Amino acid sequence: MKSKKTQVCIIGSGPAGLLLSQLLHNEGISSIIVDRQSRSRIEERVRAGVLEWGSVEALEDAGIGERMHREGLPHSGFDLAFDGDLHRIDLTALVDKRVMVYGQTEVTIDLIARRLKQGCEIIFSAEEVQPIDVKSDAPKVRYTKDGETVEITCDYIAGCDGFHGVSRQTIPQDILKTFERVYPFGWMGVLVEKPPVSDELIYANHQRGFALCSMRSPTRSRYYVQCPTTDKVEDWSDARFWDELAVRIGPQVAANLETGDSFEKSIAPLRSFVAEPMRFGNLFLCGDAAHIVPPTGAKGLNLAIADVRILSRGLIEHYKRAQDAYLEAYSQTCLKRVWKVERFSWYMSTMLHQFPEFSGFEKRMQRAEFDYLAGSEAASQALAENYVGLPLEM
Amino acid sequence: MKSKKTQVCIIGSGPAGLLLSQLLHNEGISSIIVDRQSRSRIEERVRAGVLEWGSVEALEDAGIGERMHREGLPHSGFDLAFDGDLHRIDLTALVDKRVMVYGQTEVTIDLIARRLKQGCEIIFSAEEVQPIDVKSDAPKVRYTKDGETVEITCDYIAGCDGFHGVSRQTIPQDILKTFERVYPFGWMGVLVEKPPVSDELIYANHQRGFALCSMRSPTRSRYYVQCPTTDKVEDWSDARFWDELAVRIGPQVAANLETGDSFEKSIAPLRSFVAEPMRFGNLFLCGDAAHIVPPTGAKGLNLAIADVRILSRGLIEHYKRAQDAYLEAYSQTCLKRVWKVERFSWYMSTMLHQFPEFSGFEKRMQRAEFDYLAGSEAASQALAENYVGLPLEM
Repeated sequence: MKSKKTQVCIIGSGPAGLLLSQLLHNEGISSIIVDRQSRSRIEERVRAGVLEWGSVEALEDAGIGERMHREGLPHSGFDLAFDGDLHRIDLTALVDKRVMVYGQTEVTIDLIARRLKQGCEIIFSAEEVQPIDVKSDAPKVRYTKDGETVEITCDYIAGCDGFHGVSRQTIPQDILKTFERVYPFGWMGVLVEKPPVSDELIYANHQRGFALCSMRSPTRSRYYVQCPTTDKVEDWSDARFWDELAVRIGPQVAANLETGDSFEKSIAPLRSFVAEPMRFGNLFLCGDAAHIVPPTGAKGLNLAIADVRILSRGLIEHYKRAQDAYLEAYSQTCLKRVWKVERFSWYMSTMLHQFPEFSGFEKRMQRAEFDYLAGSEAASQALAENYVGLPLEM
Repeated sequence: MKSKKTQVCIIGSGPAGLLLSQLLHNEGISSIIVDRQSRSRIEERVRAGVLEWGSVEALEDAGIGERMHREGLPHSGFDLAFDGDLHRIDLTALVDKRVMVYGQTEVTIDLIARRLKQGCEIIFSAEEVQPIDVKSDAPKVRYTKDGETVEITCDYIAGCDGFHGVSRQTIPQDILKTFERVYPFGWMGVLVEKPPVSDELIYANHQRGFALCSMRSPTRSRYYVQCPTTDKVEDWSDARFWDELAVRIGPQVAANLETGDSFEKSIAPLRSFVAEPMRFGNLFLCGDAAHIVPPTGAKGLNLAIADVRILSRGLIEHYKRAQDAYLEAYSQTCLKRVWKVERFSWYMSTMLHQFPEFSGFEKRMQRAEFDYLAGSEAASQALAENYVGLPLEM
């Protein structure tokens, strides 16, 4: 069995793991990243596309700000729509902040390139990845690659391996508490090489279901419609998708819709999930490994980045100043914020989707929420401050 | 059969009907009030106790401001509590407004006295009250009293006879749409001749259930605890009530709790209900006849007063200036506001009660809502603007 050694072993080379590795490297702290997936698979995954400004700054700190600022689209507002009525949330006017439309895929590609260029070891396509002895002073990550078993000894393990990853499963059942809400629908999404229907995002609740008009660039659009969880991608021809989207966003918006052949099409389920605690011994969970939000409001990636900012600060304080207070408070600090972001994602999802089980009264509550938002600066401000991102520490 | 004639016949001598009669009288418009209940029964009913400032002004217009200002308690804030943690909503600081703690019972007593003194005919203990020909130009209210049947011919009928009244039932089933949410618990309430535990109201969510510390005067307190709908008043001895209340408000608050023998004790169900439209022919529904809110947030009486303000304006415009635009818009104007107030009452109720069917995730959403409110000025401001009362026209 081969052995390696590093200060922080990171499981998962998604944006959370990569960003952590980069922020640690900036302060001279070593890390090795291990991932089950191949590099090409990781770089091809289509994920979220809206960054809070705090996330933008963290990516600047990671040294990948140049392309992000060149190609990303700063947005100063977005639209809510309800059965065709529109209400713009003016982020700049309400909370003096913006968000950045920039695909997670691009973030991942840039971070991998930069990490590899700086000599970081990223082990792709690792098999049987397993954290070991996480409660000891010398935890290890064991994996197999090309038939050889390798053990990486480290001070700390960062579990950035997503909802289905091994890290969370390492925490004993009697310690881990989980909270979950599965929504009775999914999002059918397409990518298309056409200019977006609007300069800003439109989140629409229509009696036929939710729809979202988003984008990746001035020439590439991302659209979604709510669909039953039993639907398959094959059920949704491009023609059906465009027809349904047009109905849900209403004729006024749809008049500007440029349709075309989709080049990516997928159905994603909607789930709220939180695991507590986010630390077990010397294993720290970050991002989707610890929590999932439904995509409404675009919080998944941003929440992962916030975890990483909090963890990197803790690790830097430990290695640079021998101060462990931040590290000790990691789980608590993260969870305070996580629950508020879960609240927001659940609120946005609940307001904007058609729930099969909703009574007439509950449907009217959704409409009343929209009408109240449209008439209340305080309520719009509350929504805006969540959308641009709550402070790192609450 | 005996006949009477008036301009507006009002069914129901609760605060809505009485206030309407008074506001019309101020402009020289005649009305007769008919009620199934006896005067003493009406004056003894224990109901709500917090007035929005718009309601205070309406009662001033009705000429009963003198005692209200002498005995009422202006409040500039209230407390939210969650498992013992407190967050004060500072109404004055957040939205520069206050509310008035003053019992609905006192409002009713003063309005009845004033209306009778001014010669208004109030027919108490009327039997078989029935609106007739409400779609005609000469609608009537028929009733029986002391064995004699009487028919009051009028221009308009105001149905202010509450949720169980006859007015709403007059609207045909194919026209009336209703929306309802029944909550799986009730409020066990007591009145006690003791100073309140705090100068301001405390709305508490505790793992054992909701509790509310309210008051009627500096020496008279009103307390509530959430209880199963199957509970009976007999199940709640004073001793049991005080023990349970103390646990739910927490030791810090309970340290100041003065207990004693309750002199009123009752269990009220919690319901959200809206009927649309609020006008049918020349019959107008006001207050509980058209809508019910759960008591959390104290909106029931205030919503009724808002309806009456809107209806009186419409009737005054009709009689004084032959302008029917306000009257024509009555149902629409009211319902816009009604749905927003229903939203607020539902939101407050959902945040503050223990729901048997709630999952762990949903319980955490309640806590996250509280924590978010405690940390967000915008969210606290949104709550405050609802609590002090949304504008009459939205």
